[in-house]
Order: sequence, then C-alpha cells, then structure tokens
Amino acid sequence: MAADLVRNLLEEKGTPRSYALQQTDVLVEAELRGHPSHGLQRLPRILRRIGKGLIDPRTQGKSHWRTPSFLKIDGLRGLGPVVALQACNMLSERASSTGVALAGIRNSNHLGMLAYYVEHLAKEGIIGIALSSSEALVHPYGGTTPLLGTNPLAIAVPTADRPLVVDLATSVVSMGKIHHHAANGCAIPEGWARDSDGEMTTDAAAAMNGSIAPFGDAKGYALGMALELLVASIADSSTAPDVRGTLDADAICNKGDVLIAIDAGKQPDLLACFSTYLDRIRKSRPTDPKRPVTVPGDGTWSRRQQALCDGIEIPGRLWDELNALSRSNEALVKGHVQ
Amino acid sequence: MAADLVRNLLEEKGTPRSYALQQTDVLVEAELRGHPSHGLQRLPRILRRIGKGLIDPRTQGKSHWRTPSFLKIDGLRGLGPVVALQACNMLSERASSTGVALAGIRNSNHLGMLAYYVEHLAKEGIIGIALSSSEALVHPYGGTTPLLGTNPLAIAVPTADRPLVVDLATSVVSMGKIHHHAANGCAIPEGWARDSDGEMTTDAAAAMNGSIAPFGDAKGYALGMALELLVASIADSSTAPDVRGTLDADAICNKGDVLIAIDAGKQPDLLACFSTYLDRIRKSRPTDPKRPVTVPGDGTWSRRQQALCDGIEIPGRLWDELNALSRSNEALVKGHVQ
Repeated sequence: MAADLVRNLLEEKGTPRSYALQQTDVLVEAELRGHPSHGLQRLPRILRRIGKGLIDPRTQGKSHWRTPSFLKIDGLRGLGPVVALQACNMLSERASSTGVALAGIRNSNHLGMLAYYVEHLAKEGIIGIALSSSEALVHPYGGTTPLLGTNPLAIAVPTADRPLVVDLATSVVSMGKIHHHAANGCAIPEGWARDSDGEMTTDAAAAMNGSIAPFGDAKGYALGMALELLVASIADSSTAPDVRGTLDADAICNKGDVLIAIDAGKQPDLLACFSTYLDRIRKSRPTDPKRPVTVPGDGTWSRRQQALCDGIEIPGRLWDELNALSRSNEALVKGHVQ
Repeated sequence: MAADLVRNLLEEKGTPRSYALQQTDVLVEAELRGHPSHGLQRLPRILRRIGKGLIDPRTQGKSHWRTPSFLKIDGLRGLGPVVALQACNMLSERASSTGVALAGIRNSNHLGMLAYYVEHLAKEGIIGIALSSSEALVHPYGGTTPLLGTNPLAIAVPTADRPLVVDLATSVVSMGKIHHHAANGCAIPEGWARDSDGEMTTDAAAAMNGSIAPFGDAKGYALGMALELLVASIADSSTAPDVRGTLDADAICNKGDVLIAIDAGKQPDLLACFSTYLDRIRKSRPTDPKRPVTVPGDGTWSRRQQALCDGIEIPGRLWDELNALSRSNEALVKGHVQ
C-alpha cells in the first residue's frame, strides 16, 4: 500500500512511527475525498521543511491549561496533525467534564484538511469546531490587495448516523486548489482571483502571486475577517500579512489554529431527529430534477467510498518528486494508494 | 425621547422597568444602525405576544450550569434580550475563570440584532459569539423548499479601539428585510428568493411565502446547515421545519440561541496590532477609487453616529400601529427617537 511508502518517507526524515502514521493518514484521507490540494501534493514541502529544521517531526508540542477550559499550545514546530490530534484528545476528555474546552495553537505546522479533526471529535460524540489562519491570500470585499488568510472553518455535529461535517475556506477557493490548477496547467474560473496588479485574472500562475476573492461577497469577507482576529486572539498568533510557513519551505510557520470541543450531553432522540431532518433535505425538490439536493459532506463521503474501492491516482510528477526526496528509491512504486 | 414611549408601551403590558429598558435598547440600537428589519417594526408583534401570554415579560428564565462551562437556560417564554443579557453576564464572569463558557437557550423569544450581545461581551474584553435558529425560511443550495433557518451568526473580537463586530444571516438576506420590502411595496433583487412554487421571484410578498437563498451558494448553505444542528444540539431546541414563534403572534417560540464567551487574557500588544491591521485594510487599494475599502461594522458604526445626531425616521404606519396598541395614546407622538 502506497500509504506505507508515504509513512516510510516521513520515518526516513526522523519522524517516529506513530507520528508518521498520523501525518500520512491526514494526507491520504484528503486524497480519498477528492481534495488533492490538501493531499500528497503537500508531502514534498513537509519533507523539505523537516530537512531544514522548520518542522521538528519528533514533538507533540508543549501544552498547558491556562484556565480549566482553555488549553494553550506551543507546537514547538511540530507536525500540524500530530500537535492538533494530541490537542483534540485533551479537549475531548476535558469537554466531557467542563462542557466546552478550546485550544489555541501557535508555532505548529499546516494541519491539512480541517474536517479530519472535527470528525475525530465527533467520533467521541463531541461537537467539534476547527479554525486556522494562513498567509495573506485573500483581498477584502471591494479591495485588491491580499490582506486576509483563507481562514478555513470546519464544524462537525454528531447525528444518529455519520456526523454532519462542513469544512470551508472563507475564500471562494483555497490557494491549494489554485496551485493544483497551476501545476496542471489549467485556467481558473472568472471571479476566483486577482493578479499582483489587483486585476481580475483566470491565469492560475498569476493568481498565485495575486489574491483570491472572499466567498459570498461582503458576508464571506466579514466572516473571514472575524475568524482572522478570532484565531490570532485565541492562538496568540500573527495576522495574515505577517504569516509565513504554510506554503513555503523557507520560514518558520507562525499561523494559528483553534480547536473547540463541546459536549452537549447524551441526546439520542435529538440525534435521531437530526438524521431524519437531513434525509428530509436530501429528498426535497431540487432545482434540477437530475441533481438531487445533497447535505454538505455527502459528495465527500461518496468520493471516499468510491476511492476505497478504486484507489487514488497520484500524478506522475508528484511521484517523481517524492522519489527524488527518498533515500530508498525502491520503496516508491508509481501506483495506487488504498 | 421616543425610546421612552417604546419603554412605556412595554411597561403598560406588565414588563418591569429594567426589562423594558433592555428590550427597548435592542430595538432602538437596530434603528440607529440602519437595520429597521430588527428595529421597532418588531415591537407590535412583541406586544401582541405579551398580550397572548406567548411572552412572559416578567422573567429572565431559569438557568443552571450543567457542567462548569456549559450554561443551560430555559427562557420560560421571557423576552429574548432579557434572557440573553442575563446569560451574557453569567458567561462573561464564568469565562474569566474557565477561559470559555457557553449557554444553550431554549424557550426564549426573538433576540433581535445578535451584534448587540457580542458587543456587550466585547465591552468586558471578552470575545463573543452568538447564534440563533429560526423558522424554515431558507432553501438548500440546489433546492427549492424552505428547510433551514436564516441561522445568523455574530462575532465580536476586542481590539485596541472599538471591537471588530460581524453579524450576518447565512441567508442572502434576512426575512425581516423581505418583510420590510413587502411592507413598503418594494420589489426584491433577483437571486434573493423563491416563491411557494419554488420559482425565482422578485415579489417580496411572494417571497414571504416562499424561501430565501443561502448566501455564497454551496459554502453559505454548508455554514447555515452546520449552525442549524449546532444550535439545536447545544440549546436542545427544534430544527427549522418545527420552529414557530419568531415571526408570528400565535405560537410559543421554540427556536434556540447559543452564546459563547471566550476570555483570551490580557493582550494589549496584540489588540494594538489588530487596530493597526484593520486600519491597513481600510487604507488598501479599492476596486473603485470612489469607494474606500471598509472593515465589517464600519458602515453600521457611521450610520449610528449620524443617527445619534439626526434621530431616526419611523414610518407613519408603524406609529399608527403602535398608537393602536397603546392605552395611553397621548404618550405617542410621531417624531424622532434620539
């Protein structure tokens, strides 16, 4: 299985087995769900950052409860998933007694797909909320200059079936997806981005040096702006124009992450109502009879089920890059991750 | 001052002075900020609901800490602002020791403008988050049937100056604004709503019986969906199709509210950075040189400053309606609220 090969690459760089498994699983899950922008495409950068000492793959970070429900974490440059999963476990346990607990994380690395962490909490019956800040990539509504992060937000709420999971950047699209378009030589749709002169563009490479639009005009901008300050305030991290280290292999990562765990207590009847309600939405009349109404996460779930059968295609160029980064080339065979 | 007249009307219906002042202030603040949909237009309905026993204006509700950071509140049919402001005060104090505290409120009435409550928290240096559910007014993305609430979200984060405050419905527009258009005989813009047959409409009256679009397409729908279950789960309240009592004078109000208070500690340097950062955004290059970039809340703040000088215009029909509801007609003089 190619997941083993990914793990091997991380272990070769000094990552303990259990941490390598965590980082690998976050990347592979993104691939399985059809989000390659948050998948293995990120691995070469992670390996380079480990090589340069920008990531310390041997730490879970240092945490302390500054108050009974507020966990402060210095990630000590650890791998994002390793630091965040440790935080999730601490929050889940604490929320069971306090009702709600949150963590502000600084000096950690990119978490990958935020849905992963809130799902982790939801598996324990805990409502999860996750936020991250990022480099200045998004222009204000009515503006032309990248001054906000993409400031993603993920929420998972348990139901009687699988939890409702939403995971959205407050930009109209993630910079990862623009990179993915650029890497594949594809144009981007109109309305996604401006170039470095502040003009609208459909050229993915030009957009990489420009800025992305907030989603949903003034409202999405307002939400992104609020999350920008919310994360910086709770994580004691930098605001977007000063953030580095999530998209490069040159700088210490100084974005922030916030995780919130809420234990609403045992609610079997309510959770059953939620499942009935979501099914009612799925069965409601669509605008296009050929496209049934979906609940957020349905598409992701279907893609994952399919990918578990079919495996996932990794672009040849990425495999070549990973091969070049590997000391044991025989471990890397172009193929499927299952 | 006309605010006194509003307060008198509430007192005539048996509302204690201090509670009448709270309800009045929430309504008048909405008017001052240019949000008449959440202003005095709501007062006749509140008075009718008190008259029918659907609102008990004499209670703050019954609250208990189910865990150290999780406040459960049965509003006992109290006035929304009275119950919520009491909750804010309890949360603010608790968050100072636990770091974060939240309240799930059920069986309370309409809160009005959510910004009011998070600003109340921010004045104490506390980050505030407020959520409410509502009747099924919003159709799913790709759907035609009203199945979600407008599910507004407000966030306030302290800075060195006035706090950053955002307050947005996850619908493209609030139903209150559609009512306001209908009441004034105005058409609504294309894309806001569908009629009861699920067809797009610009007729405000038809939209009142139909459904509103989520803002920001699939992302806004996802956010609204998550907030729908988040509120129901924390407040132990109904999901949208079963909610009644925020727009009518016939049913007990069974929506839910969630308030979250976060004390991130003393951060004078960070708060100063926030103010510098927001000013940098305001001074950044706009798409239209005649329309400077604004930070969310700037427009609201300017309107409020202006209205404090100019007073606010109340439509004649609303004054007539309030007069008809008043026992002491001489108390109501058409004029300005200052």
